[in-house]
Amino acid sequence: MGEATPMRVAIAGLGTVGSGVAKVLEQHQKDTSDAASTQPRLVRILERNPNAPQAQPWYAEKPELFSDDLNDLLREDVDVVVETIGGCGFARTLITEALKAGKHVVTANKDLIAQHGPELTALANAQGRHLLFEAAVAGAIPVLRLLKDYFQVQDLLELKGILNGTTNYILSEMESQQLAFATALSQAQELGFAEQDPTNDIKGFDARYKLVILTHLITGQWLAPEDITLEGIDHLDTADFEYANRMDRRIKLVALLQRTDAALRAYVLPLMIPKDDLLAKISGSTNVVTLHGRFSEDISLIGKGAGSLPTASAIVADLNRVQHPKHHRMNAGVSARPLESFDQYCFQHTLRFEVRDRPGIVGHIGQVLAGHGINIYALEQLPHYQDHESQQAIFTITLESAQEGLVQKALAEIQDADFMVAPVVILREPVPEQKGAPV
Amino acid sequence: MGEATPMRVAIAGLGTVGSGVAKVLEQHQKDTSDAASTQPRLVRILERNPNAPQAQPWYAEKPELFSDDLNDLLREDVDVVVETIGGCGFARTLITEALKAGKHVVTANKDLIAQHGPELTALANAQGRHLLFEAAVAGAIPVLRLLKDYFQVQDLLELKGILNGTTNYILSEMESQQLAFATALSQAQELGFAEQDPTNDIKGFDARYKLVILTHLITGQWLAPEDITLEGIDHLDTADFEYANRMDRRIKLVALLQRTDAALRAYVLPLMIPKDDLLAKISGSTNVVTLHGRFSEDISLIGKGAGSLPTASAIVADLNRVQHPKHHRMNAGVSARPLESFDQYCFQHTLRFEVRDRPGIVGHIGQVLAGHGINIYALEQLPHYQDHESQQAIFTITLESAQEGLVQKALAEIQDADFMVAPVVILREPVPEQKGAPV
Repeated sequence: MGEATPMRVAIAGLGTVGSGVAKVLEQHQKDTSDAASTQPRLVRILERNPNAPQAQPWYAEKPELFSDDLNDLLREDVDVVVETIGGCGFARTLITEALKAGKHVVTANKDLIAQHGPELTALANAQGRHLLFEAAVAGAIPVLRLLKDYFQVQDLLELKGILNGTTNYILSEMESQQLAFATALSQAQELGFAEQDPTNDIKGFDARYKLVILTHLITGQWLAPEDITLEGIDHLDTADFEYANRMDRRIKLVALLQRTDAALRAYVLPLMIPKDDLLAKISGSTNVVTLHGRFSEDISLIGKGAGSLPTASAIVADLNRVQHPKHHRMNAGVSARPLESFDQYCFQHTLRFEVRDRPGIVGHIGQVLAGHGINIYALEQLPHYQDHESQQAIFTITLESAQEGLVQKALAEIQDADFMVAPVVILREPVPEQKGAPV
Repeated sequence: MGEATPMRVAIAGLGTVGSGVAKVLEQHQKDTSDAASTQPRLVRILERNPNAPQAQPWYAEKPELFSDDLNDLLREDVDVVVETIGGCGFARTLITEALKAGKHVVTANKDLIAQHGPELTALANAQGRHLLFEAAVAGAIPVLRLLKDYFQVQDLLELKGILNGTTNYILSEMESQQLAFATALSQAQELGFAEQDPTNDIKGFDARYKLVILTHLITGQWLAPEDITLEGIDHLDTADFEYANRMDRRIKLVALLQRTDAALRAYVLPLMIPKDDLLAKISGSTNVVTLHGRFSEDISLIGKGAGSLPTASAIVADLNRVQHPKHHRMNAGVSARPLESFDQYCFQHTLRFEVRDRPGIVGHIGQVLAGHGINIYALEQLPHYQDHESQQAIFTITLESAQEGLVQKALAEIQDADFMVAPVVILREPVPEQKGAPV
């Protein structure tokens, strides 16, 4: 498609994001109001309920654009379909049919792309059409553009970031206001920072979907979401934040991708982060991605991940990429690498134990750890975590750097002991030595 | 130039940055070691002193690449000249001759581009050649790529940032270690964060050069550096940081560009920044740029601005842009706008007075301010800023939001008073209402 003819765009789903896309397109049309404008032009809207709040103003003004029939999107006068319906049901059908009909597709549907990316990108390639989903990743943080244009892909060794605004908001509030998880969550829900069913966010699924998509866009590989080690934040408690604070650390839900000579490493985990680290300074519903390259100092991108207009803006940016396609694929010439087993990763582990207090517990735990060659770095049991009535106590042990697999073996033994009241809560801190290596 | 033939690169000046470029190019050649590699290839080095420390290892290995004759860079077997000599003398001649001989030119020479950009870009356009200087701006912060690919230019309303790592390091140390300016500067010099002649950094010239170049790349306009209001940081003292701290502020040297309907606003000034603002959280020699768009939340880019490899890396990224030119100019269709007079800008001004103490001073100052319709927001005179022997005292007044021109008029009157020992030190804080407006 040349620059001379404007792209004809259909939007499927005129909810928050879809109406945002319509708004940005309309504004850009107004900005360049001459007849010869090459700005993308909105020609159709698929919406079953044109009287829904977001759709209604558009329906009132331009009813002729509206349709409730998928086939109207597949007609010849549409060049590109923007999917903003969400979910893995009808959206999947719609994208499949659009690609088959020779349309380009732009979407911000991360659940769908993370779970069905392999089949959908294969179809797009077979059809010679663009399937663009940068808007699905980190919302308004245009990290992919940066990756593509700035880094030679072989020079990028590590990407780490806070990819979910809801959990970062909750963690910030738990820390600064000394709130329990449930309290911070309800507060986030009241303020609109968390959904009524917050599972996708607080269990870390959302961040993991984004990591899957980023990994594909960087390496060309699709990892299955369930292969990436994941922990959410709903098991964390005020005691964890108090301990982290005394260790001069903050707790952040971090998504990581590392490339070593032979493998990829990836996880989404709540980590202990030193307070002077940039990641620790990012509070509230803000997202951050830090890139570590072979030849460059770390570069970080910071922005709000959420919101209608930012996501819409990212979709429009993708639309412009359809019009001005890049010469080169980013991941050309990068060989596929297996995902290293999580057992092999090294961390400094902090373990919070909740026990029925009796003499000899710490001694027992220490012995089990030593039996696996694991040393204790710090140990803390504070009087105010002791409940004399229930005979229960909380104490925290930080281990010296150890391999995950070893720690898990030791914990499996410890977990069996009769004094254990609840599963051990683990907080990890990355070990500096473990850095990615060039291709 | 197609992708099939590798670009033939000559480097002029094999100092820190030049040898960094050579190293990155060599590494990329190794990464793709097949004969058909399309990676840029180093074919010539202009260096008068091949036995200088950075050049010597290259001269020992590849003496055939070296020349001390400018004409060897203008020969047919060179496609692009990388200028890393610096300064506005020979570098200017070299770039002019290279463009005239039909070469593309890549440079990180911000002094030269900020001062002679209009003539050099005009020459490049006339010759149909690329003159790329993204590496000149903010070192490893690839803000321009982001601007070009992510924002529709008409949507970018404001760019603000910390563009100089040396001054940010000094400010951070003055604040956190309660150091006098001179002490923090010597420390920065010992650690290699500041040059022996630090004028360019501490007077703000370096940041202003970068702002001139950014402004050109965003708007297509060249502002004359001297038209942009500038204050450095060498007049600041511990009293300023203590006051800022009590006001829950930090002091940062901020470069700003705003676009309003009818004008541009630009300055480089030490500003008071609320501590929870991202800019205030950036400490040490780190740079940051925050972009404020019409349709997107703020996006910030953070990275180290200095160092050989990051700058070299940015130059190599520019080299790749020569090979894969963009379809569209970023600033196409953006109309030129005049620079608004600094007198028109609004700030909340904080004024530090150093006076020979006698009764009635504050009363006098208050009257003069009131005479210009300016209200006082806060006033502080602390006992430990009072020197009884010399009869001198320091006190600080923060004004309510006022126009710069009014404050300057009032200060001109106050400055004449017999009690004034030194010029008033002004620290400004941007007023929230004053935001850019769309094109």
